[in-house]
Amino acid sequence: MAADSLLAAEALGGNRYALARLISLIEDDGTDARAALATLYPHTGQAHIVGVTGAPGTGKSTLVNELAKALRAQDTTVGVVAVDPSSPFTGGALLGDRVRMRDLAGDPGVFIRSMASRGSLGGLARATNDVVKVLDAVGFAVVLVETVGAGQAEVDIARTAHTTVVIEAPGLGDEVQALKAGLMEIADVLVVNKADRPGAAQTARALEMVINRNVPDARGGVGEDAWRPPILQTIALDGTGVPEVLAAVGAHRDHLRASGLWASRERARVETELRNVLQQEMLGRLLARVGEGQVATWVDRIAAREVDVYTVVQTILGEEGSDAD
Amino acid sequence: MAADSLLAAEALGGNRYALARLISLIEDDGTDARAALATLYPHTGQAHIVGVTGAPGTGKSTLVNELAKALRAQDTTVGVVAVDPSSPFTGGALLGDRVRMRDLAGDPGVFIRSMASRGSLGGLARATNDVVKVLDAVGFAVVLVETVGAGQAEVDIARTAHTTVVIEAPGLGDEVQALKAGLMEIADVLVVNKADRPGAAQTARALEMVINRNVPDARGGVGEDAWRPPILQTIALDGTGVPEVLAAVGAHRDHLRASGLWASRERARVETELRNVLQQEMLGRLLARVGEGQVATWVDRIAAREVDVYTVVQTILGEEGSDAD
Repeated sequence: MAADSLLAAEALGGNRYALARLISLIEDDGTDARAALATLYPHTGQAHIVGVTGAPGTGKSTLVNELAKALRAQDTTVGVVAVDPSSPFTGGALLGDRVRMRDLAGDPGVFIRSMASRGSLGGLARATNDVVKVLDAVGFAVVLVETVGAGQAEVDIARTAHTTVVIEAPGLGDEVQALKAGLMEIADVLVVNKADRPGAAQTARALEMVINRNVPDARGGVGEDAWRPPILQTIALDGTGVPEVLAAVGAHRDHLRASGLWASRERARVETELRNVLQQEMLGRLLARVGEGQVATWVDRIAAREVDVYTVVQTILGEEGSDAD
Repeated sequence: MAADSLLAAEALGGNRYALARLISLIEDDGTDARAALATLYPHTGQAHIVGVTGAPGTGKSTLVNELAKALRAQDTTVGVVAVDPSSPFTGGALLGDRVRMRDLAGDPGVFIRSMASRGSLGGLARATNDVVKVLDAVGFAVVLVETVGAGQAEVDIARTAHTTVVIEAPGLGDEVQALKAGLMEIADVLVVNKADRPGAAQTARALEMVINRNVPDARGGVGEDAWRPPILQTIALDGTGVPEVLAAVGAHRDHLRASGLWASRERARVETELRNVLQQEMLGRLLARVGEGQVATWVDRIAAREVDVYTVVQTILGEEGSDAD
């Protein structure tokens, strides 16, 4: 515990090695890093957390890379947390992607971390949240969280960002479906990447139509305060349109601050995180108390169709809860 | 409770309307349907549960549709549970997909259900599991579970199937990454769909190489018992290769039964489900006990950076746990 807090103090002091070690601790086992997180937590709340999400094949990772470079060109520090299993940041890169990533190597104003898939539902969300907190605490002004945007866990992660950028690309054939699937309601900035390809204008028009239908219900406030997600076109491979995306992200941050939505999004993120951590902690404690042998017995009985899972859970928790109620 | 059990009895008796009502109950609120699920549960364990997963754009939904048609042509009953937000079964279809779906309409040997995205992590997995159980109990011989295969929750759902079919398509540029991202370890049958497109042979060869690296660690048993995932090519749009996929799925079922892996996969699914339901139930009980006002107070204090989430959770559960220990 003391060692973890020391690590936290060193990371706060700008020690890169301590920062990397701390993040590894969070990834390896959440509980070991908790003293450090408690130390860091009062220093959080400064960073602008930007989710970047979109289907595989939209060029999302390239755009994240370009956004990071553009932020550095403005002398803004930036952390990147890649939760997308197909991202080059997570090691799934083709050679070309790795070469592009070199642009950012060796710059102390950038920190890139990929998140491995976790063993349990919710584990990925918790670890990602904690890594974002660490990067916030040690002073990165913007934290980009890249998620694949096609799974429930990933959409939930994107939803907790201050600003969410949703990326589409022409010709994937999935753009309208992706929007219907809930990505639209979390989009603050829409980007049609690969805008040099045929169909980019149609994709942008399709997005425009969806926005016109959705804006009254959008999460960006109502009436005068309403935020209308801008639709931007980019060619991430050569950087075209990237400054405009950055400007829109900044404008959204200003809108959140001016309208009070910044605070309500913070609260929403905290509530989601509290529920997630409570769930995992309660399960961990229960399983530690009853032991693996008992769990195996329950599993055997359910697998043998002697009893169903809900009845087992009621039995376990009925007994457990009798003292507490 | 009595009404739900009656619904279960009617569904078991072959009443389609009762079946649909029951599934709606599961989707609306898991707790209302629990008496019905307890009634149905002893009737489960007969169906072959087949996960079908792959990135958007691989033609996964079309292939699921063709597999269902081919099963019906063999007089095998089939349930389809679509968890993919971009699937035509979930309502995100373009007109062409809807037209194809009509092939199955009106056939009592088929039941198709799409799962909406749930409000919480784990909610989707639980509801999907329960719908699969219902379809199993009422006698569908094969249940196809279609997931998008790009998110943690969706991969977890696919992992709980007896047999998992992973679909790739040439030219998406993501095939190798997707495999590295954990889809490979859950694949029992690999399909390169859109095999009439350029690059299909290369994609198949890339999969072959990955399998050669992975087979010693594959989950299909060791030594003589090892299952080597076949790599099949299909053109789902015209049905080419679909009988071969069905044959491979059947061969995998036979392998599972002969090797004893059928039972171990059942146990793995049950254990995952037990943990998931325990977590959600414990959280629900805790929140009901402490009340929304108290939750809001915690959220406020965390959002104000007075205290971090882990410390709050320790405080809450430390108090809660004192009686039980």
